[in-house]
Amino acid sequence: MSYKRMIREVGATLLLVGAAAVSQAQSATPAEKAIEYRQAVFKVVAGNFGPLAQNAQGKLELPPAAARQYAGRLASIAEFARDAFPDISREGKTRAKPEIWNERAEFDRLLKDLTDATRSLAGVTANAAARPEEFKAAVGAVGNACKGCHDRFREK
Amino acid sequence: MSYKRMIREVGATLLLVGAAAVSQAQSATPAEKAIEYRQAVFKVVAGNFGPLAQNAQGKLELPPAAARQYAGRLASIAEFARDAFPDISREGKTRAKPEIWNERAEFDRLLKDLTDATRSLAGVTANAAARPEEFKAAVGAVGNACKGCHDRFREK
Repeated sequence: MSYKRMIREVGATLLLVGAAAVSQAQSATPAEKAIEYRQAVFKVVAGNFGPLAQNAQGKLELPPAAARQYAGRLASIAEFARDAFPDISREGKTRAKPEIWNERAEFDRLLKDLTDATRSLAGVTANAAARPEEFKAAVGAVGNACKGCHDRFREK
Repeated sequence: MSYKRMIREVGATLLLVGAAAVSQAQSATPAEKAIEYRQAVFKVVAGNFGPLAQNAQGKLELPPAAARQYAGRLASIAEFARDAFPDISREGKTRAKPEIWNERAEFDRLLKDLTDATRSLAGVTANAAARPEEFKAAVGAVGNACKGCHDRFREK
């Protein structure tokens, strides 16, 4: 390949990559939007669960009011996840496995485990008399709900 | 530049770009994480406000139960935005202007406009006797709250 032609081809590739990035941002398809929405929901789940998990592991101090707020928000946002897997979001840039839509009842059961566990955790943090072991167990139950579903329905 | 050297340099650049992408995903700094969290919160805001705005504009049919759910969630997630601008998230890949942190009281006032407006909208959608004009006005108030803050505190 000539030097000039190579420059042209590298340039064309970079243009394509750039165009793809712009198109992703500016005119996402309904499927892309649904996937991005879901990923945002789970980022908010993780952002609120993270400090609680670190606190339960003794890695982060958390005033009771902060723990209560994180846990309350976690319980709220986990509910959003229940509608974050519409059929349209099945194919695209996602680690969500097709099994989600093929074994929907089982998937929904695991999602319910998550919302149940986050509600319990919110209850424990709202209870000033709760013991540290109760808090740790409730955090562990949320972590297990995440893991149980990821192991089965999310690509590694 | 020699052909071989150019190949090497292009390869090195691509490696750097790839490494940056991986590091972004796998070991984001606390600032990057805080910015990504905030952007996720606002994506969830937009994902729930979008259908309501389209409905108010006559572009999308929405059963009352769906409107109620979107509006309830919008009111919930808007509350998350209030803590989504920690000092640490001031600098990075963000359109949030430094004025947010320099004029914090004014910024917080505009954020409160948003949470107030979303709560009102949730109230209207929960009221079966509400008239379409009330719904449109409540949607408009949320849109104005978004725009008022973006015009002042977000880069174009």
